[in-house]
Amino acid sequence: MLNRLTQKVAMSTKTTKIVPNLALTQNLTKDVWSLTNEAAASAANNAQNKDRDLVNLGQGFFSYSPPDFALQEAKKALDSPLTNQYAPTKGRASLLNSLINFYSPLYKTQLKAENVQVTTGANEGILSALVGLVNPGDEVIVFEPFFDQYISNIQIPGGKPTYVPLHPPKDMSERVTSGTEWRVDYEELRKAVTPKTKALILNTPHNPVGKVFTREELLKIGEICVENNIVIISDEVYEHLYFTAEFPRIATLTPELGQITVTVGSAGKSFAATGWRVGWVVSQNPELLKYVSMAHTRICFSTPSPSQEACANSIEIASQKNYFENMRQEYIHKFKIFTSVFDELGLPYTKPEGTYFVLVDFSKVKIPEDYPFPQELLSKGKDFRISYWLINELGVVAIPPTEFYIPEHEKAAENLLRFAVCKSDEYLEGAVERLKLLKDYI
Amino acid sequence: MLNRLTQKVAMSTKTTKIVPNLALTQNLTKDVWSLTNEAAASAANNAQNKDRDLVNLGQGFFSYSPPDFALQEAKKALDSPLTNQYAPTKGRASLLNSLINFYSPLYKTQLKAENVQVTTGANEGILSALVGLVNPGDEVIVFEPFFDQYISNIQIPGGKPTYVPLHPPKDMSERVTSGTEWRVDYEELRKAVTPKTKALILNTPHNPVGKVFTREELLKIGEICVENNIVIISDEVYEHLYFTAEFPRIATLTPELGQITVTVGSAGKSFAATGWRVGWVVSQNPELLKYVSMAHTRICFSTPSPSQEACANSIEIASQKNYFENMRQEYIHKFKIFTSVFDELGLPYTKPEGTYFVLVDFSKVKIPEDYPFPQELLSKGKDFRISYWLINELGVVAIPPTEFYIPEHEKAAENLLRFAVCKSDEYLEGAVERLKLLKDYI
Repeated sequence: MLNRLTQKVAMSTKTTKIVPNLALTQNLTKDVWSLTNEAAASAANNAQNKDRDLVNLGQGFFSYSPPDFALQEAKKALDSPLTNQYAPTKGRASLLNSLINFYSPLYKTQLKAENVQVTTGANEGILSALVGLVNPGDEVIVFEPFFDQYISNIQIPGGKPTYVPLHPPKDMSERVTSGTEWRVDYEELRKAVTPKTKALILNTPHNPVGKVFTREELLKIGEICVENNIVIISDEVYEHLYFTAEFPRIATLTPELGQITVTVGSAGKSFAATGWRVGWVVSQNPELLKYVSMAHTRICFSTPSPSQEACANSIEIASQKNYFENMRQEYIHKFKIFTSVFDELGLPYTKPEGTYFVLVDFSKVKIPEDYPFPQELLSKGKDFRISYWLINELGVVAIPPTEFYIPEHEKAAENLLRFAVCKSDEYLEGAVERLKLLKDYI
Repeated sequence: MLNRLTQKVAMSTKTTKIVPNLALTQNLTKDVWSLTNEAAASAANNAQNKDRDLVNLGQGFFSYSPPDFALQEAKKALDSPLTNQYAPTKGRASLLNSLINFYSPLYKTQLKAENVQVTTGANEGILSALVGLVNPGDEVIVFEPFFDQYISNIQIPGGKPTYVPLHPPKDMSERVTSGTEWRVDYEELRKAVTPKTKALILNTPHNPVGKVFTREELLKIGEICVENNIVIISDEVYEHLYFTAEFPRIATLTPELGQITVTVGSAGKSFAATGWRVGWVVSQNPELLKYVSMAHTRICFSTPSPSQEACANSIEIASQKNYFENMRQEYIHKFKIFTSVFDELGLPYTKPEGTYFVLVDFSKVKIPEDYPFPQELLSKGKDFRISYWLINELGVVAIPPTEFYIPEHEKAAENLLRFAVCKSDEYLEGAVERLKLLKDYI
């Protein structure tokens, strides 16, 4: 009987044909992270690099450990049997409590558990907000350049992204500019709104531009959202890395904005622990947050429990130790170390107001046109070839930012590369030495 | 200027109206987990329970810690700076390698990295398979009773669940029966297939029935799937908890079945660490797996890195120590302790062939009809009231399984409760003592 059945299944002549999710897989060209990592792997031992290490300033992971107090808390958390089991879907009470204590003074109101949802990294927080709110055909506005995950996160529940450019200063290839000079055209933003617009994703401090949106900019964006009943998803994962006088949070500017905003935060960015996958969503509007929670429960069920416990205690300790303010000062120093080489070489860059990224303009660098680029880069923006050349010739890895644009608009970034400075000072000093070699190509 | 803007935003008279994702939020009645936990919290100090602890056999979390070797590996993993940062989206090389070593002999073929994807718990593995494959309007077959997360995971990418019953033995309220006696009607299954059927979710060992599907059953189901080009998503998270002579894995039965199957596993279930959120998807078909990987990258980006490292090493150690076989023997013992009380009371149950759940039939237990049930339970199946009564009168928490049925079919389970035995032996002995009190109600 079993043998007959086995044969019957084996003899089926149908060829398996798999049709994947078309929205998710419409773009099957390799993503920037894979392309860059593969280029780095294959260049690591080429003639130029064989006697030196690659300097990797590509993806935004920290080259150093989380602070000792966070590691100690993480180890302690493993010692309690129940902390190793499912956390409540909403998040562990200890972490909800730490977040309430941390954000209530910033929001100038007493937040409650109904205002906070723990998520499995900020990425899943943004996805949970979108899955909780978006119906098929709904539109979501993103500013361009955008973090590439936003787009598929909009598409998973059937939404459609609408792009509104952040306009860079016209002479950015001639001088050092600042994030503030990248501007929203509010008429363009108004025109992007339709009756189907459900949400707008804001990112401040902004990856990759390093822009910190001003109060005035946020109010103008917020006015359009309030008028048109558009939910604001504010990605503030770099909230502790701002180098401007203040970091305005859109949810806190008026009560109306508080009612239409969900704000996303990240323990990974705050504690140099991007691999822990702990993030959160905060909203003064419990109804909005309820839909985020429902989506999170279905997407990840619950967030890693020992890491949550570690973060809960770390937030408390960080406040006592002034950890976040010290981190800001350290990053001001890191940027100073790193951008010195571009000042010396006369390469313009966008002076970061926030985040740990800097955009550098390579217009002046002469890259041989007959350089042996791989085929798969020829259909990509010019910045992919600059990045490939830099990895192969200087052994320095950076990210080509046209990935953060739709193809029609990628010209705007074709001469830029994004460098991440979330590395030790020594590592950055090494990077500076290596980048000095650029002078032979200018 | 800023003041004027602030006023303008504040004075907007529009009332915020939020329309959530309708597929996800169509059922706003509370889920079984919330209802049961809330009932337990409010009953903890009532007159009956005030001098005793609640015995919680509801949700399937372990009352004990992961094995020492796994905890040691988890602590060790925190000591390396890079292990605290983003893992590759595909999974850490060490864990991919351990999974390849573990599954290759079971699949009787040498698996490669292209056959394995690490996910943030098995739940996100199943969601990733569905998001990778399902287009809006596609249908996905689930056997009823089903794990409730499946349904919303089908709906997130716009799919529609189709229900095929597992038929219980007709006399299950009269005698101890076995999982094998719950049967698929293959004609019913064939009729459920339409041109829109994209996938079928199989769960073996089965939650909550405890059924281990036989080779013959799997081949008959597989035959229908191969004929109709239906992808099989096989949820095998209880793969180490089978008490039958063998645990047949559908992906391994014929090469054709290997090509249409993705199989989901769980470190949480395997190492008593449900809070670590590490799972995986294995497929002999790299194309199928590629779509799972693409979806996972967009849903969670990457899985907790220190936990992955801990699991990688733990799988190797577990094989050396015969840990999984010892766990099976321990669970045979746990079931023996726990089901003894139902034998003594003469309450029928479904003798588990796998998982750590047992379904017990409460038809013979007399529950006062005028018991003060809360309003929100009156619209739910009778089993929700049995569960409420048991929590309040005996202080024992169990899960009403009609949540695993659509309302039209829930009569099939209205006298059942699901108990989880993933607790220490002492805890189970305490549960038995408490449940003996049932004799006054029979």
